[in-house]
Amino acid sequence: MSCSFKILNENAGARLGLISTPRGDIDTPAFMPVGTAATVKALLIDQVKSTGTQIILGNTYHLMLRPGIERIDRVGGLHQFMNCDLPILTDSGGFQVMSLSKISKITNDGVTFNSHIDGKKIFISPEVSIQIQKSLNSDIVMIFDECPEYTLDKNRVSKAVNLSIDWAKRSKLEFGINKNKMLFGIIQGGIFNDLRKESLDRLQEIGFDGYALGGLAVGEKQNEMFEVLDNISQFLPKNKPHYLMGVGTPSDLLGAVKRGIDMFDCVLPTRSGRTGLAYTWEGKKNLRNAKYATDDEPLDPKVNCPASQNYSRSYLNHLTNSNEILGSILLTWHNIAFYQDLMKKIRESIADNNFENFYRKHFEILNS
Amino acid sequence: MSCSFKILNENAGARLGLISTPRGDIDTPAFMPVGTAATVKALLIDQVKSTGTQIILGNTYHLMLRPGIERIDRVGGLHQFMNCDLPILTDSGGFQVMSLSKISKITNDGVTFNSHIDGKKIFISPEVSIQIQKSLNSDIVMIFDECPEYTLDKNRVSKAVNLSIDWAKRSKLEFGINKNKMLFGIIQGGIFNDLRKESLDRLQEIGFDGYALGGLAVGEKQNEMFEVLDNISQFLPKNKPHYLMGVGTPSDLLGAVKRGIDMFDCVLPTRSGRTGLAYTWEGKKNLRNAKYATDDEPLDPKVNCPASQNYSRSYLNHLTNSNEILGSILLTWHNIAFYQDLMKKIRESIADNNFENFYRKHFEILNS
Repeated sequence: MSCSFKILNENAGARLGLISTPRGDIDTPAFMPVGTAATVKALLIDQVKSTGTQIILGNTYHLMLRPGIERIDRVGGLHQFMNCDLPILTDSGGFQVMSLSKISKITNDGVTFNSHIDGKKIFISPEVSIQIQKSLNSDIVMIFDECPEYTLDKNRVSKAVNLSIDWAKRSKLEFGINKNKMLFGIIQGGIFNDLRKESLDRLQEIGFDGYALGGLAVGEKQNEMFEVLDNISQFLPKNKPHYLMGVGTPSDLLGAVKRGIDMFDCVLPTRSGRTGLAYTWEGKKNLRNAKYATDDEPLDPKVNCPASQNYSRSYLNHLTNSNEILGSILLTWHNIAFYQDLMKKIRESIADNNFENFYRKHFEILNS
Repeated sequence: MSCSFKILNENAGARLGLISTPRGDIDTPAFMPVGTAATVKALLIDQVKSTGTQIILGNTYHLMLRPGIERIDRVGGLHQFMNCDLPILTDSGGFQVMSLSKISKITNDGVTFNSHIDGKKIFISPEVSIQIQKSLNSDIVMIFDECPEYTLDKNRVSKAVNLSIDWAKRSKLEFGINKNKMLFGIIQGGIFNDLRKESLDRLQEIGFDGYALGGLAVGEKQNEMFEVLDNISQFLPKNKPHYLMGVGTPSDLLGAVKRGIDMFDCVLPTRSGRTGLAYTWEGKKNLRNAKYATDDEPLDPKVNCPASQNYSRSYLNHLTNSNEILGSILLTWHNIAFYQDLMKKIRESIADNNFENFYRKHFEILNS
């Protein structure tokens, strides 16, 4: 069975779809929990799966630095190494090289940088990134791009678009032909609509299995991000998945689905879970807050996970304030369960041609 | 159903027994994982139960300081608060008051101390300790004793024995009569055999449901601890459980079972799990060691837990060296699973009148 994507319904700008891969199907709109270093932090993969998660994300940059690709390759790839039978999408490392490492040189050839862990000098290029992703044996592979920081310098962004298009071509060449996997292009262009359009057009000339929006949620406001989506979404090819990288809050997801986005990844639910912050259908709750010490109610009875079904807010308050690992476990689990519950209800509302109502009912509360 | 204890077999000094409580049975010799602050650190209670654990321990001292007894009492006790349907033994706080807090005053009445968390001045007495343990609603309650540090000052130890006997009487009076719970006395006396014997005799005059040995594994060598056990075990009442508090390593457990001990608790398997140290049938393994980076074998295929069944040593090495929470989870789980596997095989060997062979086969390896 080779990979495929089909649209099942469209409603009020939102798309209900299905990505099929040899490792399993992914109902879209989909949220992908982040498994940076070969683990979705604080959870076993069965716990991640219990939330309805159908695909996770792995970070090429982090994995190449630690533990290194050799020992993952040796056992057949990331699925075997981390005991995960779900499909995995790997990013290309581009974003992290730019944001985490000390860059020593960017040339047309690639990027030389110093590891943020041990300072070691490392070279990465489109070819290297794709080779690594082949070793990781991920199911959805991302092109290697240059992802500039949020800037109003159009000339800087334009140069990044040009370089990224060249790297996109080289990424595709290195990827070759493999029907069991998908290769996604990444649209750059910052907040400049004409550059976004140019980036998309030139990526489509090369031809990819999906189109991602990079360089968003990097400091701009939510309405600025939505404006970029409003402008580009009309041009995105309808028969391919649309992936908004690194986004976002529950309201970001709801607003982006309304603008035709099919896929998301974000560290928010996992990272927040480790700091005592819970996402619920009533909005965010900081479990460290003293008011929860006397609150014996469940966290969010609508969410099907242990944190919300088996414990009280008072107990979670105790765990988070005592820095107990179980607090990180329960809240991470809860947050992913909530995100997946949100995506499931979004999908149901699109299937029922009721997405606009769903959006209106929840957007402001989730944005609070 | 009221609490009971019976001996099912004796072999080579070791005892096979069964403690029955309204909340469940406990096969002895038994190991109790420590759930200090209303959580067995890094694990969900279902994971703890999956290892064969039949009882856990809670710490009165830690719970009274954080989260405080009020909110545990409010929901009906520790079982409800932490969602644990296993029997729970609570210590009296005596040991932690002495070892963790800044004592401001010990009188015949009780101990005034400053919390190690916020410096708050707190008073604890036998009556207070038992009242707290009633609020926690634990199934096995420990008397409040004075537990001096390891010392060769016999006069100091003798005074602690005397005070502890007085406190034992007051503890029993405060406990009253409750057939659904058990109250254990604690034998003090340090490394002085005559004081241990005196402490035990006077406790037996008061009469308890079980007899614990306190003040061991506090700095003395293993052979010194075994000598104390060799001397006292002949006098321990045969029809009551014998509990060696705060012990120990796998070889400590094996050696103590040979000397008639039925119950153990220790933070070693949980604490070690958080530092990358695994107990196996081949001895200890420090997963942080670089040699495991190239070792794709399971941790210990004989132990039935995810760390040993679903992952490689190389993966665990990566998790521990990256300080990933999943590393703490998997190794804590493994260590408790190993301890329970050890106890199960000890029980089987006693049932088969084969304990001496079992001991000889494993003691040296486990002690390495």
